[in-house]
Amino acid sequence: MPLIHNFNSGPSILPKQVLEQAAAAIHDFNHSELSILEIGHRTSLFQDVLDEAVASLKELMELDQEHEVLFLHGGASTQFFQVPMNILDDSGSAAYLDCGTWGTKAIKEARLFGRVDVVASSKDRNYTYIPKDYRIPPDATYFHYTTNNTIEGTQVHDIPQTPVPLIADMSSDILSRVMDFNRFDLIYAGAQKNIGAAGVNAVIINKRILGKVSRRLPSMMDYRNHLENGSMLNTPPVFAIYVCMLTLRWLKEQGGVAAIEKINDAKARLLYDTLDALPVFRPKVDRADRSRMNVVFVIDQPELDAAFQEACKANGMVAIRGHRSVGGFRASLYNALPLSSVQALTELMRYFAQKNG
Amino acid sequence: MPLIHNFNSGPSILPKQVLEQAAAAIHDFNHSELSILEIGHRTSLFQDVLDEAVASLKELMELDQEHEVLFLHGGASTQFFQVPMNILDDSGSAAYLDCGTWGTKAIKEARLFGRVDVVASSKDRNYTYIPKDYRIPPDATYFHYTTNNTIEGTQVHDIPQTPVPLIADMSSDILSRVMDFNRFDLIYAGAQKNIGAAGVNAVIINKRILGKVSRRLPSMMDYRNHLENGSMLNTPPVFAIYVCMLTLRWLKEQGGVAAIEKINDAKARLLYDTLDALPVFRPKVDRADRSRMNVVFVIDQPELDAAFQEACKANGMVAIRGHRSVGGFRASLYNALPLSSVQALTELMRYFAQKNG
Repeated sequence: MPLIHNFNSGPSILPKQVLEQAAAAIHDFNHSELSILEIGHRTSLFQDVLDEAVASLKELMELDQEHEVLFLHGGASTQFFQVPMNILDDSGSAAYLDCGTWGTKAIKEARLFGRVDVVASSKDRNYTYIPKDYRIPPDATYFHYTTNNTIEGTQVHDIPQTPVPLIADMSSDILSRVMDFNRFDLIYAGAQKNIGAAGVNAVIINKRILGKVSRRLPSMMDYRNHLENGSMLNTPPVFAIYVCMLTLRWLKEQGGVAAIEKINDAKARLLYDTLDALPVFRPKVDRADRSRMNVVFVIDQPELDAAFQEACKANGMVAIRGHRSVGGFRASLYNALPLSSVQALTELMRYFAQKNG
Repeated sequence: MPLIHNFNSGPSILPKQVLEQAAAAIHDFNHSELSILEIGHRTSLFQDVLDEAVASLKELMELDQEHEVLFLHGGASTQFFQVPMNILDDSGSAAYLDCGTWGTKAIKEARLFGRVDVVASSKDRNYTYIPKDYRIPPDATYFHYTTNNTIEGTQVHDIPQTPVPLIADMSSDILSRVMDFNRFDLIYAGAQKNIGAAGVNAVIINKRILGKVSRRLPSMMDYRNHLENGSMLNTPPVFAIYVCMLTLRWLKEQGGVAAIEKINDAKARLLYDTLDALPVFRPKVDRADRSRMNVVFVIDQPELDAAFQEACKANGMVAIRGHRSVGGFRASLYNALPLSSVQALTELMRYFAQKNG
């Protein structure tokens, strides 16, 4: 039986120690003789978990006093509409960058609440690059973009310069690289890549952008209610937040974001260098815009696709396949994936290229 | 160290076998050599989990072909607004029964979307009874009520007779007693009492009530999108759904809803009989409307409150306390709580009454 290498795009690999601690807490949480699944959310037992998760995220992101952290239900897909519902007035106009599947979905939802100005799109070349020359109107209510395109394999490497409030979907690259997170007014990210397991979102907010729309909001959709209630407006997803807390604790033990970025760089460089060197494989996106989290590539001879899939499977490489909407191959290299898994994959690629070159 | 008796009101006690299976799946799910927290949601591994959870819920509730089952994010509190957003047109009027904290919250959210006709309220006596003589207007878009009031300890024992579509929040008594669930057009329930762990909702829908409002809905709020995508419009809360699947499997092994209802009846009868027999304690709600899930009571001599809390704690009785909004005491007797825990509690009560009588 080969060692398993988990290249899943999300839900994805978690650190072994997180899995061990999570399983132990299902038997007995913190010597309470209760399972983490059975404790009340309004106990100090859980409040300590939530407090640590919030504090760790603030510390890892080096957030200033103006930024607050929420853990919310609903996935990033709920944020696609919750953001404009809270921030974009009927008479306002929001600027969006369209560089992939998730950005397109975010734009669709924003149009329910106000005008949307798509400042640039890379749809013309199937989202294989990041548009560079675009202008964000200075009177836009906010500018929204996706920092990393999980499906297409592109990444926005620099934070756009703009005086308008900055909002980003960072689901698939949050905590993978050092960024000045304080430049953002709102950041959201599904937990199931670099923060924890599926079932919860992290939302980071600068309160100054709230309270400016005139529409009435459902209680559960109003960020202000969640801020006032410290992410406990209703029963939170207790276990999912616990896994976040453990994963953030692990990341701090690794040395934080700067330390993990070095490893992420080494992983991505090794994989892209291998793809560039082997004529059988071809990375799909523009070199300058390559994602360090999701490496998307193809084999130019489609008759080899099945053989490569088979070779991956035989060698314990899980989920080396493109998203069902784009086909081809993808290897996701999130924080918890060790360099050794990328070494194993690139060795397999070299062997495969030699055999089929 | 005493044996633990978990009377939590939710998140609450789960069957021991569910906890053991959940912990094992965090180490290795179904011999995949991956954790349940690390598998892709669009794999057959997870599809099988979701399919079994849906099939088990349909079987346990004896749902007919017209009723579909969804597992959604956001807690029952999201349903408070998602229901009227999908079903109540601006020009329509919905009938609501106001018999407790959760019903009151549901009414508040419905008012954002149309007119609300509160057909009856038990607020006059602090929600200690269920109103009986009320009229549901035959032209109401729907009638909504809470089947069991977790906080106040009352329960609606009979399904109201009405020709209009029937909608119920069953968060705290779903699957605890036999009901004709097919009489409802929409049922919702947070999982963290009788279905599984916190982090997911069950929503049961008769599709005939959908598609009748004119407003545009955010994609994630439109039940039709979730139905079309089989609860996988976006990344679902994988682990929470897995715990539901295990808990529903356990309930089937117990003999289903009819079998568990007998045990639930025995538990509630024993506790209420004890409270009625001991002058120290007093059940707070009208006898006819007592909940079999959440038994709410007080001690008439407030100076004994702390001593009883202390006695409970010393004997491993967890969470024998009223909701922070009402005070007093509450013991929640969900499906997974064994009769032996109620026996232990009532023995303690008799001992306490004798000492303090």
